[in-house]
Amino acid sequence: MRIGFVGLGRMGSGMAARLVAAGHQLVVFNRTRGKAASLAARGAAIAEAPAEAARGVDALVTMLSDDAAVEEALFGGDGAARTLPRGAVHVSSSTISPELSARMAERHAAAGQRYVAAPVLGRPGIAERGELVVLAAGAPDALEASRPILDAIGKQVRVVGVEPPKANVVKLAANFVMAVTLEALGEAYALVESGGVDDATFLDVLNGAVLQSPFVEAYGKRIAGNAFAPAGFRLALGAKDVRLALQAAERAAVPMPLGSVLLYRFVAAIAGGHADEDWAAVGRVSTARRGTIV
Amino acid sequence: MRIGFVGLGRMGSGMAARLVAAGHQLVVFNRTRGKAASLAARGAAIAEAPAEAARGVDALVTMLSDDAAVEEALFGGDGAARTLPRGAVHVSSSTISPELSARMAERHAAAGQRYVAAPVLGRPGIAERGELVVLAAGAPDALEASRPILDAIGKQVRVVGVEPPKANVVKLAANFVMAVTLEALGEAYALVESGGVDDATFLDVLNGAVLQSPFVEAYGKRIAGNAFAPAGFRLALGAKDVRLALQAAERAAVPMPLGSVLLYRFVAAIAGGHADEDWAAVGRVSTARRGTIV
Amino acid sequence: MRIGFVGLGRMGSGMAARLVAAGHQLVVFNRTRGKAASLAARGAAIAEAPAEAARGVDALVTMLSDDAAVEEALFGGDGAARTLPRGAVHVSSSTISPELSARMAERHAAAGQRYVAAPVLGRPGIAERGELVVLAAGAPDALEASRPILDAIGKQVRVVGVEPPKANVVKLAANFVMAVTLEALGEAYALVESGGVDDATFLDVLNGAVLQSPFVEAYGKRIAGNAFAPAGFRLALGAKDVRLALQAAERAAVPMPLGSVLLYRFVAAIAGGHADEDWAAVGRVSTARRGTIV
Amino acid sequence: MRIGFVGLGRMGSGMAARLVAAGHQLVVFNRTRGKAASLAARGAAIAEAPAEAARGVDALVTMLSDDAAVEEALFGGDGAARTLPRGAVHVSSSTISPELSARMAERHAAAGQRYVAAPVLGRPGIAERGELVVLAAGAPDALEASRPILDAIGKQVRVVGVEPPKANVVKLAANFVMAVTLEALGEAYALVESGGVDDATFLDVLNGAVLQSPFVEAYGKRIAGNAFAPAGFRLALGAKDVRLALQAAERAAVPMPLGSVLLYRFVAAIAGGHADEDWAAVGRVSTARRGTIV
Repeated sequence: MRIGFVGLGRMGSGMAARLVAAGHQLVVFNRTRGKAASLAARGAAIAEAPAEAARGVDALVTMLSDDAAVEEALFGGDGAARTLPRGAVHVSSSTISPELSARMAERHAAAGQRYVAAPVLGRPGIAERGELVVLAAGAPDALEASRPILDAIGKQVRVVGVEPPKANVVKLAANFVMAVTLEALGEAYALVESGGVDDATFLDVLNGAVLQSPFVEAYGKRIAGNAFAPAGFRLALGAKDVRLALQAAERAAVPMPLGSVLLYRFVAAIAGGHADEDWAAVGRVSTARRGTIV
Repeated sequence: MRIGFVGLGRMGSGMAARLVAAGHQLVVFNRTRGKAASLAARGAAIAEAPAEAARGVDALVTMLSDDAAVEEALFGGDGAARTLPRGAVHVSSSTISPELSARMAERHAAAGQRYVAAPVLGRPGIAERGELVVLAAGAPDALEASRPILDAIGKQVRVVGVEPPKANVVKLAANFVMAVTLEALGEAYALVESGGVDDATFLDVLNGAVLQSPFVEAYGKRIAGNAFAPAGFRLALGAKDVRLALQAAERAAVPMPLGSVLLYRFVAAIAGGHADEDWAAVGRVSTARRGTIV
Repeated sequence: MRIGFVGLGRMGSGMAARLVAAGHQLVVFNRTRGKAASLAARGAAIAEAPAEAARGVDALVTMLSDDAAVEEALFGGDGAARTLPRGAVHVSSSTISPELSARMAERHAAAGQRYVAAPVLGRPGIAERGELVVLAAGAPDALEASRPILDAIGKQVRVVGVEPPKANVVKLAANFVMAVTLEALGEAYALVESGGVDDATFLDVLNGAVLQSPFVEAYGKRIAGNAFAPAGFRLALGAKDVRLALQAAERAAVPMPLGSVLLYRFVAAIAGGHADEDWAAVGRVSTARRGTIV
Repeated sequence: MRIGFVGLGRMGSGMAARLVAAGHQLVVFNRTRGKAASLAARGAAIAEAPAEAARGVDALVTMLSDDAAVEEALFGGDGAARTLPRGAVHVSSSTISPELSARMAERHAAAGQRYVAAPVLGRPGIAERGELVVLAAGAPDALEASRPILDAIGKQVRVVGVEPPKANVVKLAANFVMAVTLEALGEAYALVESGGVDDATFLDVLNGAVLQSPFVEAYGKRIAGNAFAPAGFRLALGAKDVRLALQAAERAAVPMPLGSVLLYRFVAAIAGGHADEDWAAVGRVSTARRGTIV
């Protein structure tokens, strides 16, 4: 397939590399040019603007940092929406609001374009290996058309519905539960430490005997070891996702008491200078003892 | 061994039955007499007071509902502490405050008695099968002396330290993380439902692709199915454990922001009439849509 | 002065009437036409679009419900920004984000127009009497030019700075403290009621002996009497203001723990069907006894 | 009257001095002896134990720091309850749980003694001037009997009911609203500061134009000036009162969402080393900028 790819951040560059490796013909665009070089070396063409990346393609993939970036890339001055051919499919993998996803679905439909929301679970290293979990939602024909892309970037493709925003809300809710878990581990560690028990002993009981989750195991060790740099997923991005979850909830009049406090914890962590650390740091910041982390 | 057993609630009666089955000689006491009948039928003697249950035994096991009940059974008018022989070991399996545990350790030591804190993870059905996880802390000789008991009630015995309160704080912290998870699942469900996604689809993604925890799987299904009666673990008891965790934290000047809100959610659930349902109900109550649960 | 006035909601129509009464020449615009009729009867001209209301005026006053409405009225298709004369002053009285206020300041400056942020404290009846408290911020010359307007709508004009967003942040912070107070009163009432003390007795002690605030007196009685309709200030608008405060705080990495929970309470109140009641209802919803309000 | 007085802390010594000044005959007891010296110099007798202070008196006044201290002084080894004459009245001014107040009411009644709950609002300097606000609850005859005492210590005596715990719950609820206000002021200051507005300007608007409360004025200035030492009311005691409010609420299944977060803020403040500062410090700690207070 001929594929336009917009957004070559840490996740996007791994995903684009997988598409090249799968034999697709890529035209890539990134605001910061340097990031496109290694893809160009593997045969990808470099576009000067989103509009150029979308011209004449079978599919457009976007992997950007937030709603504003996606809106600009699609509908801004040199946006991709105006050049994407009729019938082509836009695969939107960014973590964005369900609301923007719904608006894109409408505008693409009005332009005769197709649209699939396909946010992903996983981190940069996993993206490079093509082993992301893809949460996909869209019309059956659009999903069908984007299959080769989804299969190239993901080890699992989970279709969660026909309406694209469903994939976005599932992504936000999953990140919310993960973020709560990080903060809860941090608070639990602080509690057991106050009783003279070390984190590892507690984690061993909690996960060994109760939760038995590889996620808890990995992050539990990371928090126990205060190993927050380099970040697998930046705390500031985690804050953004929690905020998106709360905004979607508020729009639907869904109260989220834990979620509300959780966002405050992320803000406090950012205020404490931890924005660029791994999001697992939120668990330490909230209950840090003097002299250690805050 | 000759064992006194005080507290034949849903957990205690299962544990006591395991001890009888393992060949120990039991003298049991329960405030409400009726509950001792089935154990008596299997050969246990029935005591009229805690003091009687503790007289002449090698070990005393207590499994009561809260600090007050334990204090009364041990140090009240007809309490077990005054009759427990020197050298005998008190195995305290109740979920109580680390503070009371520390006080009992002192008083038993002063009386030449031994003391092991051995709170357990698991529910009544699991207690009946002798498959609890036992969190034990105590002096090596006391742990040694109580081994036959711990092995009879647990499939795993995890020693978390020499000072008894360590086992209690680990128990509280583990229950705290579990309780947070229940509430977080409920809030996440409410969020995805507002986007038209059903709970099962979300759980499938969350646990299938991310957490991979049998705990999340079981409780996630329970909450999705609004299956809160009969209770595996009563919500009112869950509230008590969260409160104990917060009190222990406060005593040590450990702030627990999520924990603080979590306790409020349990209180709200109790205010809503859910005290006797399974503690998983907390996740529904907090974010219930009109007409459903609150 | 010749004044364009955009936004004739409950607050705006009272303010516009004061300006007419003070002898100014008004051109008014409101999306819903009917609301302009009574002003037309008093001599105001009716415009077909914001752009028309701003053409040739000395000053433009906007009093709209939120950021989106202000952006549309100023910079939308038929927006006022394009017709407002050079040198004319835009007096923005809506409760909006400091961020939008900063953007308007820039754009007006670039167009040679002047800009004053002048959000107000008070309710519709007070607006009709011209007794609002005006929080004004802007360059001295712009403030000077808008004085006749500010004096006509307010009994007090408090200048809080030269940079316009300062007035907006002060407005949001003041509303935040007021909203916290409403919720706190509700929780305190629930507590004393649980002890058999009626709300009025408690309010008498709290305000009579401690706070001595007319605000607490008035709202305290309103909450005690469950008198939430008709709304003086709609709960949904109160929620908006708390959200704006939190967003401004988050943007500046300022953690607001009480504020975070407060927003959740407003969302819960809206979920409970109280969006159109007075914002004082938030205090009841949060802790309502079964069968009463939630 | 012949009055036993137990508890000569900062509040108690001021109150006792007023009673001496009013011509009553005092027998005082304090665990730390030194504090009784200045009262002895004014003619008060010094007791060796609470039991001695209560022997043969017309009334007993207790002003102690918490439930445990009151229980010990009344019902401990050398407690006052056993010597207080039949018909004498115990005036309990400590800030304690409604639950303990109810228990004391019962025990005094059973012993033929009378009991009035009379917690006070005000700080040490105010106690010295006899200008406290007394919240009194008790049977009419008991209130009548304690009138000379209440009038000597208070400028206002507000009777809130016949059942003593009512006075205690009103005291806790009033302190809760005050504490919320302190935290809310701190968060609001942090918000306006982030927008470049100084605290004093904001306070001037908030209190001058809206709340008009002397309480807000005084504490607002204190927080603006970071003037937390010496403490008028120690933060650790404020934390205790918020905890008591939450415990009373929980016991009655009254959810207090703001209250829950508020207690966490006090714990965080204590964790930050502010236990001995004025409770107004809670407002700074929660949202302190780096390098200032936390």
